[in-house]
Amino acid sequence: MIPATTVPGLEAHHDGSPLYVHGGHDGSGHLGLGDEARVRVRTREGSGVVRVWVRTVEDAEPRFAPARHLGAAAGWDWWEGRVRVHNPVARYRFLLEREHDGAGSPPAWLNAAGMWGHDVPDVADFRLTAAAPGPGWAAGAVTYQVFPDRFARSTERALAESAAAEGASGWAAPDWAVPAMWGDAVVHEGPDTPRQLFGGDLDGIREHLDHLEELGVEVLYLTPIFPARSNHRYDASTFRHVDPILGGDSALVRLVTACHARGIRVIGDLTANHTGDAHEWFQRAAASGARADGTGVGATSSAAERDYYYFGPDGTYEAWWGVPSLPKLDWASLALRGEFLEGPGSVVAQWLREPYRLDGWRLDVGNMTGRLGAVDHHTDVFRVLRATALAARPDALLIAESTNDASADFQGDTFHGSMSYASLTRPLWGWLADGIAVNYFGAPSGRPPRIPAEGFLAQYRAFSAAYPWDVRLRSLSAIDTHDTARAATAMVPGGQQVAAVLAFTLPGMPMVFAGDEFGLEGVNGEDSRTPMPWDAPERVVADLRGLYSRLGHLRREATLRIGSLRWLWARGDLLVFVRELPEATFLVAAARAATAVALPAGVLPEGWPGAEPALAVGRLVLEPADARPRPDAQGAAAHDGAARLAAEGPAAVVWRLAGPGLPAEG
Amino acid sequence: MIPATTVPGLEAHHDGSPLYVHGGHDGSGHLGLGDEARVRVRTREGSGVVRVWVRTVEDAEPRFAPARHLGAAAGWDWWEGRVRVHNPVARYRFLLEREHDGAGSPPAWLNAAGMWGHDVPDVADFRLTAAAPGPGWAAGAVTYQVFPDRFARSTERALAESAAAEGASGWAAPDWAVPAMWGDAVVHEGPDTPRQLFGGDLDGIREHLDHLEELGVEVLYLTPIFPARSNHRYDASTFRHVDPILGGDSALVRLVTACHARGIRVIGDLTANHTGDAHEWFQRAAASGARADGTGVGATSSAAERDYYYFGPDGTYEAWWGVPSLPKLDWASLALRGEFLEGPGSVVAQWLREPYRLDGWRLDVGNMTGRLGAVDHHTDVFRVLRATALAARPDALLIAESTNDASADFQGDTFHGSMSYASLTRPLWGWLADGIAVNYFGAPSGRPPRIPAEGFLAQYRAFSAAYPWDVRLRSLSAIDTHDTARAATAMVPGGQQVAAVLAFTLPGMPMVFAGDEFGLEGVNGEDSRTPMPWDAPERVVADLRGLYSRLGHLRREATLRIGSLRWLWARGDLLVFVRELPEATFLVAAARAATAVALPAGVLPEGWPGAEPALAVGRLVLEPADARPRPDAQGAAAHDGAARLAAEGPAAVVWRLAGPGLPAEG
Repeated sequence: MIPATTVPGLEAHHDGSPLYVHGGHDGSGHLGLGDEARVRVRTREGSGVVRVWVRTVEDAEPRFAPARHLGAAAGWDWWEGRVRVHNPVARYRFLLEREHDGAGSPPAWLNAAGMWGHDVPDVADFRLTAAAPGPGWAAGAVTYQVFPDRFARSTERALAESAAAEGASGWAAPDWAVPAMWGDAVVHEGPDTPRQLFGGDLDGIREHLDHLEELGVEVLYLTPIFPARSNHRYDASTFRHVDPILGGDSALVRLVTACHARGIRVIGDLTANHTGDAHEWFQRAAASGARADGTGVGATSSAAERDYYYFGPDGTYEAWWGVPSLPKLDWASLALRGEFLEGPGSVVAQWLREPYRLDGWRLDVGNMTGRLGAVDHHTDVFRVLRATALAARPDALLIAESTNDASADFQGDTFHGSMSYASLTRPLWGWLADGIAVNYFGAPSGRPPRIPAEGFLAQYRAFSAAYPWDVRLRSLSAIDTHDTARAATAMVPGGQQVAAVLAFTLPGMPMVFAGDEFGLEGVNGEDSRTPMPWDAPERVVADLRGLYSRLGHLRREATLRIGSLRWLWARGDLLVFVRELPEATFLVAAARAATAVALPAGVLPEGWPGAEPALAVGRLVLEPADARPRPDAQGAAAHDGAARLAAEGPAAVVWRLAGPGLPAEG
Repeated sequence: MIPATTVPGLEAHHDGSPLYVHGGHDGSGHLGLGDEARVRVRTREGSGVVRVWVRTVEDAEPRFAPARHLGAAAGWDWWEGRVRVHNPVARYRFLLEREHDGAGSPPAWLNAAGMWGHDVPDVADFRLTAAAPGPGWAAGAVTYQVFPDRFARSTERALAESAAAEGASGWAAPDWAVPAMWGDAVVHEGPDTPRQLFGGDLDGIREHLDHLEELGVEVLYLTPIFPARSNHRYDASTFRHVDPILGGDSALVRLVTACHARGIRVIGDLTANHTGDAHEWFQRAAASGARADGTGVGATSSAAERDYYYFGPDGTYEAWWGVPSLPKLDWASLALRGEFLEGPGSVVAQWLREPYRLDGWRLDVGNMTGRLGAVDHHTDVFRVLRATALAARPDALLIAESTNDASADFQGDTFHGSMSYASLTRPLWGWLADGIAVNYFGAPSGRPPRIPAEGFLAQYRAFSAAYPWDVRLRSLSAIDTHDTARAATAMVPGGQQVAAVLAFTLPGMPMVFAGDEFGLEGVNGEDSRTPMPWDAPERVVADLRGLYSRLGHLRREATLRIGSLRWLWARGDLLVFVRELPEATFLVAAARAATAVALPAGVLPEGWPGAEPALAVGRLVLEPADARPRPDAQGAAAHDGAARLAAEGPAAVVWRLAGPGLPAEG
């Protein structure tokens, strides 16, 4: 049922959730260096498992220790072993020993990527980290991404607009901008793409916080708000002020204050990889001309900022993907570190402190930051950034963008979580793709590949496995973003809704890109930045506010925020899994197309027959395979647990069940 | 045919061999930082591949570039793209785009672990490194491991022995030793295990160089030769002299000189993780007592060597696996670095220079060295060691032991190759295991797991994939070592011979542990250290000298040393692969048991029908499936390429064929 990694006849499960990991000397659950965790694993009764070993790796050398049998419950054997956090990242896996005929049997290794009938490298081992996890408020929290130029104009600005002559902008657009009316079509290719300015502002966001609250939003993530020469503002001209077009510094204070009053956190978007070429640092650096060549002849005075960038002797400089307007920062510069990274006056700290009080940062281009050829300051830079941020605000959240295989940079010592497309967004697109031509994360084929549920799961697992569990819980789960096509465009009709259910029920911080709740469309990131259709019902493609609101509120359940994830089925058009904590189980089934599947007894958790869905999109029916309940000895209805699942098209259903049966504490 | 990673209907191949990678600005084939390689990939005609893309990762960000179609030859399309060594380790893979119906098709990714129908993390990407590869002499060279105490007593010592009273040792055994006669049984458990001393010496080895030459040995690897208080000498008491029991410094000079005269290289065994507690440094360190506590009260004078180790305030110290006789070295000590690592007078350099002229080092416990909890000096220490060694001897070889998943430490910038059990030894044992109880690399089950050919290949690939090709060629391929049971004991009867054929025909440095050529047995590493049965035919279990000699001389073929590796079949009891260079192809089939398999047309390379085996062990027949040749248009014999392969038991055959058909240069 679960592809690729299954050892026939053997089922077992472990993950980093509280169902399986206990410990922490201070009762917080966090393990420091040298602390020991109790780790549990369950094996299906009848799997023939006679002994279980925990394999750890200490100082790069493997060790084995026995796990003891805790007891049996609800058809599973439970075992418990110990893992010491000997190194800052402690890796472990389980070796399951089965009865054999004396000639030896294949090994059964359980790691975070699944079960393996042969030995596998350590990269997908389970892991505990000595680094403190991110803030509790962030674990699994519902996040809402706003691209400020396109979210809303404040009433004040809208009034100015309507007071202005027809066709003219009623506010002072900057020299670089091509002002647009709120209902204009978005320019998504060509030179005007970054210049088209709709004039959304921070007070416009503040005036729509009822909308966020109705959706159950807990974290507002703003793409950049610094002054720049583009509508996306990733080409900052300073990191010290909020763009006046957005309302300036005071508008941010008003917005954050209003959010906090509603219990909504706000995180900003900071680029440590590059600045804009209009940035005050770069302007001074470029103006200071070539460095002294030793003789001093021909050298102009050199600004301190010259060292912030990678200038060559000929005045050329390194830039993000070679784009000259985005000069790359050189983190060998101690002056740059002082200005940007270090201490309460740094850029990093300034916005986390009074009066702004941002709750954290999303770091743009996190993966490339500090890296250039043979130079790699990445980890060093972000360790310093972390220390500064947490000194300014101990409960700050730090997330970094990493477009690809991110896990090596997310071992808990720098960022608390990732914004990556590899572990969820891409496999979701692959499973739900409509085959139409949209930008697929820069891949050259021009359309998403189409993968079955087996491929979804293999890819989801492969890219998630190397994250510590705490990092998974604080990584953004996006079905689309300001940098991608819209899910509504890329996916089969109804696919967006299925994807949303998955994003809200799998581990991570489910992230809604503003406009998804109106079914907005777009073939690439720029096209997706449609102004929100406030008071314009004709521009609402599909009103999904009810769905997102139900998902947002369902997400308050601890089980969905931090509970264990166990896959039950992944084949073709159908995915089924459970999230589990002692107090509740959530069963989730998702179909991408019409399908009818017989699920054998033992696949679904106890208590499912007859449960009412907590949430459903599309039409999906789950019923006992034996439709006529058989009377048991007590005369009550009974089933053997086998089920029939039928979907009429893309559909997803969430059921809330009682918590799993667990053994008495050993 | 090839399990797990195959995308149905699609076959393609690439590896780092000269068949697929071209470039290097100086013609050496080595690529420096910023250099560009031309990389080729072949796809089977009829696979429906219409476009091929090379995906690289630069500064942690993926990029795609098209590969051009070079032409077709012998049933394959060849494509060529470019990879720039932008970072010290340049990763790349191929995306194969197939014809599809417009709805999108699953992707086909080719990386070093195989072909994947879904996206996979970067860890198994192909890789080029900017670090200079190891010496040319080492690539694929036949290596012979000698445990000096058990190899041979010199004539002089043997004469002394026979002149002594019966039952007494004729040479001066040290106080810690339990002297043994050459024909005594080996003590392989209990306190006398490390003390039992047979008295082999370096002149004894020198007197048997004819034997090595007959076996085709190119590299002699000596386990430690420093004075110690055990027969294995991993607990050195100094690194500055050769143990007098082995003949002292001058015996080493005689041995290396004699080896060099025959074209045999010699590498030593150095432990940078720990010393013995009898080591001169540790003796001084321990005697110097507790460090000054600031007040100076109670402090004894502190020796410089106190810093070489991890002493706690109570006088306890860190040790390898907690074994007090093996105190762990603290690489934070600059004095230790000066003494051991840095400059021509260092331990590392001393033995590579006149008059000793060792050709390189095998670093013991390489994986743990420099690592302890939150401390990790590993890469730093070995970069310095490498610089010192290569300054002393530019063609030195540096290999490190790493018992488990080694690839992260073997990216070309420190060691040239590994001595690891993960990539070959363990999967070989798993495939050829006899089910009897032997020590399986510390795993607790007490016997090797048994895996089919699919598991062998998956494991072999998974643990090899993350090595740069140059590192694979200089990594030891052992079927057993001084630290394991003997292959003859662990494997099915005849399995050792099959394993030896694989070790000698797969990429790497095939390593023979002295005694394998006499079929010696042993249930664990200590038991395997049997004195060689010179002049004692009754102790020869199986005379395999002829086989090893044929393998050793076959290994002179460039194709087997550096050629491409392409798997053709891996199922159950049968493995089939080819090694390829333009000038010759080697086809290898290995069976672990009696088997009969039909190989469809297209599996085997051109030219196989009727080829005479270059080497064979056991009985294995390969013949056209159509036993009666059909006349083709020219009246000559013709086959459709389908084959029948039948083995009567464990068997392996090697055929030498013409080189593969290649496209005209594009």
